[in-house]
Amino acid sequence: PRLDLLVLPGDGIGPEVVREGVLLLRELEPSLPAELHIREGAIGGAAVDEVGDPLPADTLSAALSAGAVFLGAVGGPRWENLPAERRPEQGLLRLRKEMRVFANLRPLRLPPELSFLSPLRLEILGEGGLDVLIVRELVGGIYFGEPRGIFVEGGERVAVDTLRYREEEIARVVDVAFRIARTQGKPLASVDKANVLASSRLWREVVEAKRAEYPDVPVRHVLVDAFAMDLVRRPTAYGVVVTENLFGDILSDLGGALVGSLGLLPSASLSEGGPHLYEPVHGSAPDIAGQGIANPAGMLLTVAMFLRHTLAAEDAASAVEAAVFATIARGRVTPDLAEACRRAHASGRCPAPEVLSTAEFGAA
Amino acid sequence: PRLDLLVLPGDGIGPEVVREGVLLLRELEPSLPAELHIREGAIGGAAVDEVGDPLPADTLSAALSAGAVFLGAVGGPRWENLPAERRPEQGLLRLRKEMRVFANLRPLRLPPELSFLSPLRLEILGEGGLDVLIVRELVGGIYFGEPRGIFVEGGERVAVDTLRYREEEIARVVDVAFRIARTQGKPLASVDKANVLASSRLWREVVEAKRAEYPDVPVRHVLVDAFAMDLVRRPTAYGVVVTENLFGDILSDLGGALVGSLGLLPSASLSEGGPHLYEPVHGSAPDIAGQGIANPAGMLLTVAMFLRHTLAAEDAASAVEAAVFATIARGRVTPDLAEACRRAHASGRCPAPEVLSTAEFGAA
Ligand SMILES: [Mg+2]
Ligand SMILES: [Mg+2]
Repeated sequence: PRLDLLVLPGDGIGPEVVREGVLLLRELEPSLPAELHIREGAIGGAAVDEVGDPLPADTLSAALSAGAVFLGAVGGPRWENLPAERRPEQGLLRLRKEMRVFANLRPLRLPPELSFLSPLRLEILGEGGLDVLIVRELVGGIYFGEPRGIFVEGGERVAVDTLRYREEEIARVVDVAFRIARTQGKPLASVDKANVLASSRLWREVVEAKRAEYPDVPVRHVLVDAFAMDLVRRPTAYGVVVTENLFGDILSDLGGALVGSLGLLPSASLSEGGPHLYEPVHGSAPDIAGQGIANPAGMLLTVAMFLRHTLAAEDAASAVEAAVFATIARGRVTPDLAEACRRAHASGRCPAPEVLSTAEFGAA
Repeated sequence: PRLDLLVLPGDGIGPEVVREGVLLLRELEPSLPAELHIREGAIGGAAVDEVGDPLPADTLSAALSAGAVFLGAVGGPRWENLPAERRPEQGLLRLRKEMRVFANLRPLRLPPELSFLSPLRLEILGEGGLDVLIVRELVGGIYFGEPRGIFVEGGERVAVDTLRYREEEIARVVDVAFRIARTQGKPLASVDKANVLASSRLWREVVEAKRAEYPDVPVRHVLVDAFAMDLVRRPTAYGVVVTENLFGDILSDLGGALVGSLGLLPSASLSEGGPHLYEPVHGSAPDIAGQGIANPAGMLLTVAMFLRHTLAAEDAASAVEAAVFATIARGRVTPDLAEACRRAHASGRCPAPEVLSTAEFGAA
């Protein structure tokens, strides 16, 4: 079968890392269960420069009819002073919304041979390394609820935000998390604040109801503050973690910091039935753009997520991940990881680093 | 002058650690700027057993007229199945509310010689160790806002929580944080989510307005997700941190985990003009209660906070803190820290641990 991919390089280091992602896809194609038709589109600051809109109409329609969408990164100082609706970030927010990608997957992975990259002590990551998947609800909750705003009451300003979830909004993201936990044979932790918040009580009830459909998946509920502690004390106790938008925002970034480098973080945002959106976490990094020194690992691991979640090509996905981690473990790294490798080399935990360019890492 | 202290031992290990706190106060009294009159009151499960109420009326009135209140801990399995209003935790929540303690101070301190207790790598804590103070707004925000609840709309359940802050609620806690930052000569970081939340935009405006009163205090704003990352990547970049209730709940627990042991965490909750409430963070730990093995360090460090914030006896406060940390650094620890010390001893970072009882540690 044929699969249409829309590739949106965007700004900053976006085009450089996307290039490596596409090269990898081309290399893998003969062994994949689909024929890839790759088309490129404009988004972000690049699209503002071209047509004055960070999400041009033809980019949006191509995205909605694609089999999957890859994004590099958007934004940069050149476009920071534009009016809100023409900022590059608005293009990405609108794209996510129009694609209805409600389940944001943020894998936190660091195999044991790369544990030295983490700010956590080696003993804490243990023999298995870090391997947690955070599933964050992405389109509901307090970032969107009404009423919201700053009002004047009795002569004093009062600010209000509303955390609101419909049962169905919770059920669909919880279902995605259960499905992944089952496929990967891992336990599921649902993170909430059910001892205080009404929305968390409903969240917990929905998770409990969903349990019946997945009797083979072990489930537990963890309070968000206790989970934040666990993530630094015993992250290896977790497999798949599902949580609402604001908690997921904080916890996925905290977890990302535990991996030790933004350059190693992939993400996927899943819709129901429509195309999924794949993007590395790192952002546009305008300070190093165009120098060929960006770390493409986040993008290559994002390609692996596409192989897993769009193509169900688990073997190919695992092979890509193993290759990326093995390359780094041999000390073949882009400049962002060189310092950590040098430190690890000094204590005998890593070969002497050999600093590669973006293209060399992609090829390695 | 005379200062009335109300001491509320509570449940579990509460009485054991409070005993050591009172012994320390008695020992220090001759050198303090006030004569201490210590009275004991009932709270929590112990009060339920005595008079059927987790916050008896005479405890509450004694608290409101005291110069300061010390609390051990409340709760335990014996009282878990009581109706909500008679649960031990309700007594504490009501006490905090009646005392109007809106500024919860959570110091995260680990001197460099104790860095081995942290789950973070030694290099990250560096030569200064960990020394961050989180000031959490404690009586407003999403844990209290209305409307809240689970409703039915169009045949579907919908849950709502409301994050609401009046300008004045923000200003008073921000003012406490500025005052402490000035006194301690430290920079202030205000943590919010102003790129998305209306309440955070008002929060940021109030901080900006308050700046004029404290031109000598360096201030910056940090987004909550970025701050969670910074707390594990470069915690030493921070001094005093102020944030709203929910963010503070998550971040103070995360920060507590970075100290490595709940047993080492003190807290103070400050009111405006009224008595402050002092309590260690650890809770009632019913599994080890009554065995004389509880770690009293959290309580002793809480006494130091009382010396600092109620008596302005900074020298005495620092001396207590130094003594507690020095005792641990000599390997003289209660059982909860013995394992970590043994591990550190193996790599030469700590003397062989000598395991002490609660009373022995208090005396040491
Ligand atoms: Mg975030
Ligand atoms: Mg908490």
